[in-house]
Amino acid sequence: MISAQTIVNQLIHQNAPYSPKTEGTAFAPVNIALIKYWGKRNNALNLPVTDSLSIGLRTLGTTTSIRLHQGQDIIYLNNERLPFDHPFAQRTSRYLDLFRRQPNDGFMVMTKNDVPTGAGLASSASGYAALVLALNDLFQWQLDKTQLSILARIGSGSACRSLWDGLVHWHAGQQDDGLDSYATPLVYQLPTLRIGLLTLSNKTKPVSSRIGMQQTVHGLSLYPAWKTMVDTHLTQITQAFEKQDINGIGKISEHNALAMHATMLSASPALCYFLPETLATLQTLWSAREAGLNCWATLDAGPNVKLLFEAETAHDVKKLFPDINIIQPFVS
Amino acid sequence: MISAQTIVNQLIHQNAPYSPKTEGTAFAPVNIALIKYWGKRNNALNLPVTDSLSIGLRTLGTTTSIRLHQGQDIIYLNNERLPFDHPFAQRTSRYLDLFRRQPNDGFMVMTKNDVPTGAGLASSASGYAALVLALNDLFQWQLDKTQLSILARIGSGSACRSLWDGLVHWHAGQQDDGLDSYATPLVYQLPTLRIGLLTLSNKTKPVSSRIGMQQTVHGLSLYPAWKTMVDTHLTQITQAFEKQDINGIGKISEHNALAMHATMLSASPALCYFLPETLATLQTLWSAREAGLNCWATLDAGPNVKLLFEAETAHDVKKLFPDINIIQPFVS
Repeated sequence: MISAQTIVNQLIHQNAPYSPKTEGTAFAPVNIALIKYWGKRNNALNLPVTDSLSIGLRTLGTTTSIRLHQGQDIIYLNNERLPFDHPFAQRTSRYLDLFRRQPNDGFMVMTKNDVPTGAGLASSASGYAALVLALNDLFQWQLDKTQLSILARIGSGSACRSLWDGLVHWHAGQQDDGLDSYATPLVYQLPTLRIGLLTLSNKTKPVSSRIGMQQTVHGLSLYPAWKTMVDTHLTQITQAFEKQDINGIGKISEHNALAMHATMLSASPALCYFLPETLATLQTLWSAREAGLNCWATLDAGPNVKLLFEAETAHDVKKLFPDINIIQPFVS
Repeated sequence: MISAQTIVNQLIHQNAPYSPKTEGTAFAPVNIALIKYWGKRNNALNLPVTDSLSIGLRTLGTTTSIRLHQGQDIIYLNNERLPFDHPFAQRTSRYLDLFRRQPNDGFMVMTKNDVPTGAGLASSASGYAALVLALNDLFQWQLDKTQLSILARIGSGSACRSLWDGLVHWHAGQQDDGLDSYATPLVYQLPTLRIGLLTLSNKTKPVSSRIGMQQTVHGLSLYPAWKTMVDTHLTQITQAFEKQDINGIGKISEHNALAMHATMLSASPALCYFLPETLATLQTLWSAREAGLNCWATLDAGPNVKLLFEAETAHDVKKLFPDINIIQPFVS
């Protein structure tokens, strides 16, 4: 099994002389998967079973700055200094271990999320993407986006997609070293697409996506049928992109998201990120759709619902869900 | 494609002379599937994709009496005469068409359900079983239970299991005529098993199991992984029966039921029989189980939850769900 350190050394340490700046800083957008990443073929390197497709939220994401300092890492999350044993701090420091010149090289990290952390709103995707970009800035690696995407993936799988706005395709790859598993931006533009965020709960989810995935993929579940479904959805959604068919994109995305949750519900023990409010929201949506509203849902590994719809439908969606936060992912 | 009428003629019309009684009457118990019937290989004959296993509720079911009369069928459901165009009356009459000597032979049917009709509480299973038994009594066919099970199956698939108390195994069979697709009782006794019924909604479900099944099995869904799962569950639960391991039986049953609902959630359009209250109930149960309560859920194609537990746990279950209706399926 190839270690993350081996890959990092291959990508970075062969590079130019060591000349860090005082501070590196970067922003990376949250991405919402339309075709979900669910299931790993390699846990250490976050190599996925299938390709996935996402859309960047452009205006929502993570801003991170990083400095070198001597001693233990100091991690600020949303202006609050975290204790060393905080899970977020521990995970960040374990990831930063990959980039220390000397064992006692420390980092000071200041990170701010525009969305709640660990609530299934893809904060770890934008978080690790911003961290890698900030490290690249700090150390002046001047890596290309493919290399940065691989480094971000090692931090959190879906982070490899958070280096771009717009539509992004994460190629699963086939190699054991994962050097062919990274994201690339897609050319399609969907200027009339709107994404609505319905935050039903800000609470940290009881089971992390990382653990949830393992629980679903290993053991008896309906997961064996997932790969075939994703392959079909990828073909279908690409056709919908070409036609700028937002209703088609919404329909496929909702099908894919619910099927991902279905794989979890079919595991033992069952994993259910839905809250009763999640189901109530979906049922409101489905009733409205039967009455003619063109609006679709997607859900990540958490209770919150994201809606996909055309700009012209925004008014009706807002009437149905007054608390919605509507994002325009493409500059028109 | 072999018609239901062909099968019925084969089973009945070769029989002894026509000597109907004034009235036929019968009771059949509701059955709760531990390993679900979900998906047909033949719609006309209700031939299933997989075997299934159920338990009769003994004291809850359907009581039906039937008489011959001239003219259109008269159907009473729970003491109320149904209009001819009522879906229940229409479906019953279509089934009774299979048993008319002359086209204008009518029936008067009086049927009473101990559980709400069409709410995912298996009323159609006990309903068609009671109807077949009542017809057998009326016409004095003196058919054996295998033949009656086949006739009941033609009315409603899971009805073929409602001819017995206790544990019942429906063999999927392989023949096109379905004459090898019927139920048989199992010898295992589980005198300490209790089944708790939580009726969260009495409303008729928005999509019948019949339609729901078709929607899931045809088209893109996770259903292709269902058969393998059922095969494994059948092996596992048989071992649990042998050991009288009620906790093991509960665990496998819950896994199987949630996986069935997962196949529906993965269909397009998604089919979701859960209400927000269903999810709240499951989450209450799961929390209690984490705290040590040995109790498991099963759910049919409806929003209501049935619980499986040992007699000794009944007190704690009742504390958690005060409205529960606890059934003892085996005479101790």
